[in-house]
Amino acid sequence: MRSIVSFYLLSVWLSFLCVIFVWLWSGTWRGGFAWDGSFLQFNWHPVLMVTSLVVLYGNAIVLYRVPLTWSRWRCKLSHAGLLSVAVVLSVLGVCAAFDFHRGNNIPHLYSLHSWIGISTVVLFTLQWFGGLCAFLLPWTPLAFRVFLKPLHVWMGTAIFILSLIASLSGISEKLLLTLNGRNGSNTEPYTALPAEALFANSLGILVVIFGLVVLRILSNHKWKNPQFENESDRERHPGVVFCCCCPSASRLDLLCLQGCSSAYLGCNEWLFELLLTFYQLESVWPFSSDL
Amino acid sequence: MRSIVSFYLLSVWLSFLCVIFVWLWSGTWRGGFAWDGSFLQFNWHPVLMVTSLVVLYGNAIVLYRVPLTWSRWRCKLSHAGLLSVAVVLSVLGVCAAFDFHRGNNIPHLYSLHSWIGISTVVLFTLQWFGGLCAFLLPWTPLAFRVFLKPLHVWMGTAIFILSLIASLSGISEKLLLTLNGRNGSNTEPYTALPAEALFANSLGILVVIFGLVVLRILSNHKWKNPQFENESDRERHPGVVFCCCCPSASRLDLLCLQGCSSAYLGCNEWLFELLLTFYQLESVWPFSSDL
Repeated sequence: MRSIVSFYLLSVWLSFLCVIFVWLWSGTWRGGFAWDGSFLQFNWHPVLMVTSLVVLYGNAIVLYRVPLTWSRWRCKLSHAGLLSVAVVLSVLGVCAAFDFHRGNNIPHLYSLHSWIGISTVVLFTLQWFGGLCAFLLPWTPLAFRVFLKPLHVWMGTAIFILSLIASLSGISEKLLLTLNGRNGSNTEPYTALPAEALFANSLGILVVIFGLVVLRILSNHKWKNPQFENESDRERHPGVVFCCCCPSASRLDLLCLQGCSSAYLGCNEWLFELLLTFYQLESVWPFSSDL
Repeated sequence: MRSIVSFYLLSVWLSFLCVIFVWLWSGTWRGGFAWDGSFLQFNWHPVLMVTSLVVLYGNAIVLYRVPLTWSRWRCKLSHAGLLSVAVVLSVLGVCAAFDFHRGNNIPHLYSLHSWIGISTVVLFTLQWFGGLCAFLLPWTPLAFRVFLKPLHVWMGTAIFILSLIASLSGISEKLLLTLNGRNGSNTEPYTALPAEALFANSLGILVVIFGLVVLRILSNHKWKNPQFENESDRERHPGVVFCCCCPSASRLDLLCLQGCSSAYLGCNEWLFELLLTFYQLESVWPFSSDL
């Protein structure tokens, strides 16, 4: 319990650092912001992409792991809300780059970063739209939600990893294209590692550390909130049995519930008690044996 | 069962494609190979890094998911063997880049790619050495192995994600530095998307798809081989009970085994039979109930 809170607080702290770093890089070293087709418009691109596809997205996907006392519906709305803001900001971020290209006769989508980046934004938009239709619209059949959920969860993580790859290759590309001793810039070249390069490289490292912390939170199945895991699965296979064992005091408590196919097996007393309360169990079979 | 085989075959097929693509890029478009401090020595860098940190590493970490009839020991040795080759090739790959820098007065470790790349290689070497000591040396206490295993597994995945980020930023960096219309090169600039850029971008996309297929195989807990999951945990908490339920034919089979703390819960008849055989069970309690 304490470790999920520590990891979550670390992810929030890293979120702020990522946004501050990318904002300072574009706003200070790259000359600030505008929306006029110039390089100042391009400066919105890293800020909007890191804020949306890394920070907001990362915070939205760990929301189901955080031990909040929120209801399922409130958690779902916050997840959808954060991702909706992320979709809008990421599309604006893509527009900023495309407008800059158009204004400076630079072709679109030639670099590996742009290929990965545009695939990430398209997949994210599809995932967001699919998620919205499947999990928020009340008339979506429960069976379809149950079918879609594992794919939605896995695609969510895959898109986050793509976002990390796109961000890192993007920061790298921007530094290589601007700190090259050309373009009339009076900055030192990238190879001399001037202060800007050091700062932007650190931003890249921060993004990677934030990404790994988010993936760490997602990978620990003990931190899954059973309240959010099992509710929609209730009607999946009515014949399959829910089984939960609490191995405290060398005793095996068996807890069987009709109408649920999911299973929780672990040593956490707190989760076990929560399951008992959540499913309002009528029958519990405690049995001691000489196993 | 069929889907893990399909995913595994896809990962093998993508492995070959990644190696062929990176070999052709360095060998054909970049002029071939040498070990003389020139740019021809640098050409070993992408080949060795993609082959070691992406392809061999990816194949080594999915080995425990593949439904082979190998013994635990044989599987462990193959995992360690593939990773040992990967460590050697990755160190050679780093040497190739450092020698090229030295021969051409280019500073080491200035770019974001190099920061991520060197961190990945260092972490990988530490993980390989730690894994070798903890899981192959026979005198390592079982309790220490059990403590280390979740960290080893998670670090393994994290290092693989870092490898993907390093590879993509590396391919991107190489293209931006070489296809820039300078350096006396007679190639078209990157912005014109010449054949080489198209080919190397495709290599990047292949690496990402291979990475996602590997992560998909790792993420599916149903594909974990219980033979490899539980053996070393046997002596962990002697009081805790192994519990396995096979919910076929609306019947609950309960299978309890003293001396094992891990648990398998699922609907797979094949795995259930395998567990019965593997643990040489003396007692099985089938009970039908009106659950």
